[in-house]
Amino acid sequence: MDKNEYRQRISHFQDALQARELDGAIIFQAVDLYYLSGTAQSCHLFIPSQGEPLLLAFRDFNRARTEAAVNNVLPLRSFREIPSLLAAAGLQEPKHLGLAMDVISLNLFRRYEEIFPGCQWVDISGILRTQRMIKSEAELAALRYAAEKHAAVFRYIGDIIQPGMTELEIAAAFEAFARRLGHQGTKRFRGQEQGMIPGIVAAGVNATLTSCYDLPLAGNGLTPLYPMGPSQRRWEKGEPLLIDYAGVYGDYTVDQTRVYLDSEVEPQMHKAQEVAKEIAAKVAERARPGVTAGELYDFAVKMAEKAGLGEYFMGYGRQVSYIGHGTGLELNEWPVIAKGNKTALAEGMVFALEPKFVFPGRGSVGIEDTYVVTEKGAVSLTF
Amino acid sequence: MDKNEYRQRISHFQDALQARELDGAIIFQAVDLYYLSGTAQSCHLFIPSQGEPLLLAFRDFNRARTEAAVNNVLPLRSFREIPSLLAAAGLQEPKHLGLAMDVISLNLFRRYEEIFPGCQWVDISGILRTQRMIKSEAELAALRYAAEKHAAVFRYIGDIIQPGMTELEIAAAFEAFARRLGHQGTKRFRGQEQGMIPGIVAAGVNATLTSCYDLPLAGNGLTPLYPMGPSQRRWEKGEPLLIDYAGVYGDYTVDQTRVYLDSEVEPQMHKAQEVAKEIAAKVAERARPGVTAGELYDFAVKMAEKAGLGEYFMGYGRQVSYIGHGTGLELNEWPVIAKGNKTALAEGMVFALEPKFVFPGRGSVGIEDTYVVTEKGAVSLTF
Repeated sequence: MDKNEYRQRISHFQDALQARELDGAIIFQAVDLYYLSGTAQSCHLFIPSQGEPLLLAFRDFNRARTEAAVNNVLPLRSFREIPSLLAAAGLQEPKHLGLAMDVISLNLFRRYEEIFPGCQWVDISGILRTQRMIKSEAELAALRYAAEKHAAVFRYIGDIIQPGMTELEIAAAFEAFARRLGHQGTKRFRGQEQGMIPGIVAAGVNATLTSCYDLPLAGNGLTPLYPMGPSQRRWEKGEPLLIDYAGVYGDYTVDQTRVYLDSEVEPQMHKAQEVAKEIAAKVAERARPGVTAGELYDFAVKMAEKAGLGEYFMGYGRQVSYIGHGTGLELNEWPVIAKGNKTALAEGMVFALEPKFVFPGRGSVGIEDTYVVTEKGAVSLTF
Repeated sequence: MDKNEYRQRISHFQDALQARELDGAIIFQAVDLYYLSGTAQSCHLFIPSQGEPLLLAFRDFNRARTEAAVNNVLPLRSFREIPSLLAAAGLQEPKHLGLAMDVISLNLFRRYEEIFPGCQWVDISGILRTQRMIKSEAELAALRYAAEKHAAVFRYIGDIIQPGMTELEIAAAFEAFARRLGHQGTKRFRGQEQGMIPGIVAAGVNATLTSCYDLPLAGNGLTPLYPMGPSQRRWEKGEPLLIDYAGVYGDYTVDQTRVYLDSEVEPQMHKAQEVAKEIAAKVAERARPGVTAGELYDFAVKMAEKAGLGEYFMGYGRQVSYIGHGTGLELNEWPVIAKGNKTALAEGMVFALEPKFVFPGRGSVGIEDTYVVTEKGAVSLTF
């Protein structure tokens, strides 16, 4: 990204701070930092509602200074220095400051309260997540890069899987190929602690298991502390096999799911797979600027019901209330294509669309691709 | 783990709650939940300072009920139900409750405050982390299992690496082999958001780079948003190659580092590698019950200084203040073998010991194994 892109991001963000009558915001979370400054090092980025931002780099200072697109970068030796460094840079004692309260720990929040005792704190996570919904041309190029790599991994895995392989063997083959193509081997999922498995490989009944995450299906996993993803179970003929992975190549993340069905899989699942594809195609066609996310959700639910598959759509029993989610620097960005979400789509939004059907005790089918919203509807990046 | 183990853990924890004069504690974080109840599903576990715990399972209820070692498990439909479910189970309105404040988000804390308006909150993370320092026989067996698998991966990688391979190619080979052996493909690192690379493969100067994490060295990584681990750089003859991975097999995590040096690597690094091995051996020998973590740290620093390598020990310029760290369900457990840490070692403690030397602009060497403390000193699990 060139410096101009960061200047525009900061200017856009400052407009929103001014509209909320804030003195500024402190950015501390790695992805927010990276989005606004170009570095994800351990820093506190002060963005006044007007004027130049100041990046206080705790660790690693040299790395932060080299990477950062902002001009004012100072080393930070201790947290308590923050107020004096802000004052020395001419930034008045702030009275109303924004923080991303969706991801701050209680401990960090209390430390900020201590060093700015008179300050009122406002949650600006919505401002940031709203701004990040619309991807720039440079971001779209980065997402296309990630999507091409990820689609190549799915083509590879489609060629080598065979009944009799365990879910773990298939996952290991998928991940090894992806890693050689530059997959980061991890992902950024806003607000989630470490421990989330990189993807799901699940055969038959395992693909119907839910877990602690807000997902229609999660897989069994290897042990209860990592309750998601592949297990040691073998994929048997006649069972659908579901593979769902986040693709993190470069800085950007796409999401994709494929389901493999042989002729022995029962007809209802074959039918549901066709319905899932139709839902994806029709929703994408309708995903034009101005349509709300909630309207797309309702439309998809109606298609599923019309096909007689409503009770299996997006989970069974406890269905999730979305059919897709934004993706970008993080896997769980906005907009969420969810029930009642009044966010209107706009050109440059990117989301994963994942119509899925869960048949309890039997298996799951569906499809997922990552799309960009254009004037003519949403266009898939992961084909 | 059998039910008796969980009963003992809860009883031990309740003793500590009583000593702090607390009414009880609410456990919400996945690893704490798993340690005390046997499930890592999305739950709120109420542990009164006396009597039976109550597990309120939000998602997935069936999975939580099946896995949990506690007797009272109820489904939780909404957060606001918590006080009435506690009351219905005969648990009086609490006035002093413990929470793990090292990992709670501001949002979750505020929600607890809302539903228990008269309650005072106390940080019990230290109680939990102290209790978890001492591993039971069943935990030690699980750690030995993880260590054997991980040591096998290091034997494999030692056989196949060759100069000319990129760091990423080596990482991909390491991870693929580990994954087939059942590595979880992720790790649990207390308090860290998603996005941390699973391990480090770094050649020559890349192994001297630090980053946002509290590590003596981090590697370059592939992009600034994932600023750690392997890059596309090739390992050249005459450069030390450092491989440092967490090994997560089953529920437990070990940590191991190996450095590969050919005869063309400069003599000072060969010497430092021998010194690192000596430090590890001598520290392990001294790591007997009663010795403090801080004493071990000081001893290691003195050995490095005596060898004329003090300035390169555990980083260069900004050295980290530890030579090792506890490991178990999480990679960053207690005790930290750190400067000034007065924790006395005891039988059954498990820690990774990682004496390393960083030569700026040139490369890093060192060794890391995971040890258990016995009457006769610390014994390595990862050889």
